[in-house]
Amino acid sequence: MAWRGVAAGVGVALALMGGVAQAESPAAKVRAWRQANEKAIVGDFIKLLSMPNVATNVPDIEANAAYLQAQLKARGFATQLLTAEPGTPPSVFGELKTPGARRTVVFYAHYDGQPIGQKGWVTPPFQPAVRTALPEAKAIDWQAAGALDPAWRVYARSAGDDKGSVQAMLSALDALKAIGRKPTVNIKILWEGEEEQGSPHFAALVTKHKETLKGDVLIMGDGPMHQSGKQMINFGNRGIVGFKTTVYGPLKPLHDGHYGSWAPSPTVMIASLVTSLRTDDGKILIPGFADEVSPVSEAEKAALAALPPIEPELKQAMGLGRNIGGPRLADGYLAPTLNVRAIHGGDTGPDAANAISTEAEASFDIRLAPGMTPAVVHRKVEDYLKGQGWTIVRDTPDLATRLANPKIVRLNWDEGESTATKTAMDGPAAAAVAASIGRTVGYPVLKLPIVGASSGMAEIVGTLQAPMVGVSIANYDDNQHAVNENLTLGALFGGIEVYAGLLSDLTW
Amino acid sequence: MAWRGVAAGVGVALALMGGVAQAESPAAKVRAWRQANEKAIVGDFIKLLSMPNVATNVPDIEANAAYLQAQLKARGFATQLLTAEPGTPPSVFGELKTPGARRTVVFYAHYDGQPIGQKGWVTPPFQPAVRTALPEAKAIDWQAAGALDPAWRVYARSAGDDKGSVQAMLSALDALKAIGRKPTVNIKILWEGEEEQGSPHFAALVTKHKETLKGDVLIMGDGPMHQSGKQMINFGNRGIVGFKTTVYGPLKPLHDGHYGSWAPSPTVMIASLVTSLRTDDGKILIPGFADEVSPVSEAEKAALAALPPIEPELKQAMGLGRNIGGPRLADGYLAPTLNVRAIHGGDTGPDAANAISTEAEASFDIRLAPGMTPAVVHRKVEDYLKGQGWTIVRDTPDLATRLANPKIVRLNWDEGESTATKTAMDGPAAAAVAASIGRTVGYPVLKLPIVGASSGMAEIVGTLQAPMVGVSIANYDDNQHAVNENLTLGALFGGIEVYAGLLSDLTW
Repeated sequence: MAWRGVAAGVGVALALMGGVAQAESPAAKVRAWRQANEKAIVGDFIKLLSMPNVATNVPDIEANAAYLQAQLKARGFATQLLTAEPGTPPSVFGELKTPGARRTVVFYAHYDGQPIGQKGWVTPPFQPAVRTALPEAKAIDWQAAGALDPAWRVYARSAGDDKGSVQAMLSALDALKAIGRKPTVNIKILWEGEEEQGSPHFAALVTKHKETLKGDVLIMGDGPMHQSGKQMINFGNRGIVGFKTTVYGPLKPLHDGHYGSWAPSPTVMIASLVTSLRTDDGKILIPGFADEVSPVSEAEKAALAALPPIEPELKQAMGLGRNIGGPRLADGYLAPTLNVRAIHGGDTGPDAANAISTEAEASFDIRLAPGMTPAVVHRKVEDYLKGQGWTIVRDTPDLATRLANPKIVRLNWDEGESTATKTAMDGPAAAAVAASIGRTVGYPVLKLPIVGASSGMAEIVGTLQAPMVGVSIANYDDNQHAVNENLTLGALFGGIEVYAGLLSDLTW
Repeated sequence: MAWRGVAAGVGVALALMGGVAQAESPAAKVRAWRQANEKAIVGDFIKLLSMPNVATNVPDIEANAAYLQAQLKARGFATQLLTAEPGTPPSVFGELKTPGARRTVVFYAHYDGQPIGQKGWVTPPFQPAVRTALPEAKAIDWQAAGALDPAWRVYARSAGDDKGSVQAMLSALDALKAIGRKPTVNIKILWEGEEEQGSPHFAALVTKHKETLKGDVLIMGDGPMHQSGKQMINFGNRGIVGFKTTVYGPLKPLHDGHYGSWAPSPTVMIASLVTSLRTDDGKILIPGFADEVSPVSEAEKAALAALPPIEPELKQAMGLGRNIGGPRLADGYLAPTLNVRAIHGGDTGPDAANAISTEAEASFDIRLAPGMTPAVVHRKVEDYLKGQGWTIVRDTPDLATRLANPKIVRLNWDEGESTATKTAMDGPAAAAVAASIGRTVGYPVLKLPIVGASSGMAEIVGTLQAPMVGVSIANYDDNQHAVNENLTLGALFGGIEVYAGLLSDLTW
């Protein structure tokens, strides 16, 4: 294929391909620059990761935003911090105009991270550390080492999700400056600060700053690469809604010998509530739950079928003796998924008592397929639970409420939620992005019609009505959302090359 | 009824009733003594409750045992500490022979307590405090108060379960000495130190010391009075087995957006395991689970029907809008009950993540009805789970085991377990105990064929082959096994009178 030849070429001249002017890839020069500067790059990344960024802590978020704003300013960007309203997490915005450019590309990423409470971090989540390749993952003095091994990993919260994308962009800008390469497009950067909280204010922020943010394509820099390790682009995200439930038993714990055959048990009630919503193999039991889901096109089916099979390796790596749903990982992405984030009731371990607990809780998130809307999902979930005999309340029930209702569930929807977004896979901007990455990496980029995860990007797409292409640079096994989140150095270095290409050889 | 006249009488002469010599009740004099000494009694109780007694901490248990041994020795008992083997929790044994007595009565209680880890103790569990009546339950300086209100409560671990019985016995002995009243029977006292752990060594202890422990009736001083506040005796306990289960998902937490439709979810698996074992309304779903249960006799049915209805008040007090099982609380006592002590998986609260957790766990106890045996229950539970597709392991599975088995549950049976025990309700010793308590309290004592709770007493009954009568003195709402365990002063004072009667007017 023609682009292979281009990828292998040198020089900065424009080549005419299929009637469209194509810039030559800067990949080789960027790589050489990176190899000469990799310790400085990793040092910058570690500095960025050292800043706590759990989105619920607004002062932390603001510190990150100020730092990133300064980074963009130092690279020649006109910058501002955008908010929906004062006191909410700011998005960092930067704009760099390219004389003569016809297109404006908006690069999205998010700089906030998931909560850090999970147990088992090998090093504290905001004290980034480099460790050797899996499975050893030994601590290593990377500054004293010779060349850095791309299989080594930086461990820290947000390493993979999503400060890796932020650092790759910053380093790509440095690389282009160092090699004297100019961007081919106008650049807008939008780095969100509350994505891991479900983007509660992001839709309003985008609406408020719609004119500032508009562009010809949105490149969403979030999420992992394909499990095969190949670069992959995607054309949308599922939406998400989340909710927490608490069910109630006796006002005080009861001895189960005396009361276990007579008093309702919250631990059993919560298990029953969970299994009334979905089966072990993932089937959602709410009738008609997927009625609004958009049909899957032939092009989407073909793209899914073209993904390299990685499921046997995944099972091996994850220690799974089975999978649920369809045989291929991505089979379920164009349908909704109901996940039980947590279930808790009663004491275990040394404090375990032969007692009936007073309450139990479960927490859920639902990934919405294209076509589904949060309001309809709310209604279907609540109608279904009511049909199962539950009385839904929004606060801890008082005594009168408890006595008047046999089965009470406190149900609270999460603040942040989003619909799915999906861009056509074959538009000109999408094709240009695919071609650019193909030139950078030397093979046809994989195409995923939609990723299973959700993103604040859904909001921006709906408001700005620009096509969206997701560009993921993180290793799939980056433990995103979990303990010991990490990014391989190879993923970071590859991401720099991908971004440098998108900045300086993209044209359509 | 004749015993009412006797209860109202005075003096110490024996009265002939129905051909059996009946001692007059010491209740009135004991009460007068108690009223004159109630602060000293409460002070003694608080001293006893101040000693930590979680059975897993053997040094604590041994300190309690030494203290109680000294208390019995000071009251003229020949004492020893009995163990099954060195290093296991000792039982405190004391014997006081009564010249001329024909009968030997063995009084059982336990001095160990449940774990204390539950949150919400109004005062630390081993810093006993007196508080006013519910619902105010205000802290009060009881030593500075005038007369003590019987509705006040002592809050501490084991106040109700079961150091209240221990203190009632010690104070009853003091009362009888003070009023110059001699016991009518030989007294043996056996205070167990590991009941709340399921009595793992108690059967061996009783077998080893069978000759030391034998008697004509066993009076089991444990458990609460009837919810109506009336004194109640019982004729047995259900047995108990417990087990813990852990189910396994991916080796590392996974982002549920990417993997939720493909990777099995431990939170759902554990909920499914729970709901496969029992329904919300208490039905155990293991086929034939109750096949071995002994039939319920007409006398038992009649005794159950004669219990005062307390269910509406219970629901009000417990904040329950419904009950499960039969309409009467005791309806389920002659059948097995499966309780889900706890269920846990994933994070909630500020650390909640949109992730698939690596494992989840649930903890169960099963109350065994008469006729059931732990070994058969083990087999039925495990066969059932295997039939549901589970592979049962005893340790955390290694990678090869995970990969080879689609659904793995680690299942570990609790160490302590017991069968049910049930004594005939109409034997002569049982009738004598009922009559004694009737004389003390002035109304016919309620009779419960079996209590729902379990006890190490099951072992002693089987080994010693003596009839057993359960005598409960604790208020039913004593929060036993739970946070803020307590005993009303009225329950303690009433218990002293009941024990004083059993020690000094029991004859058959």
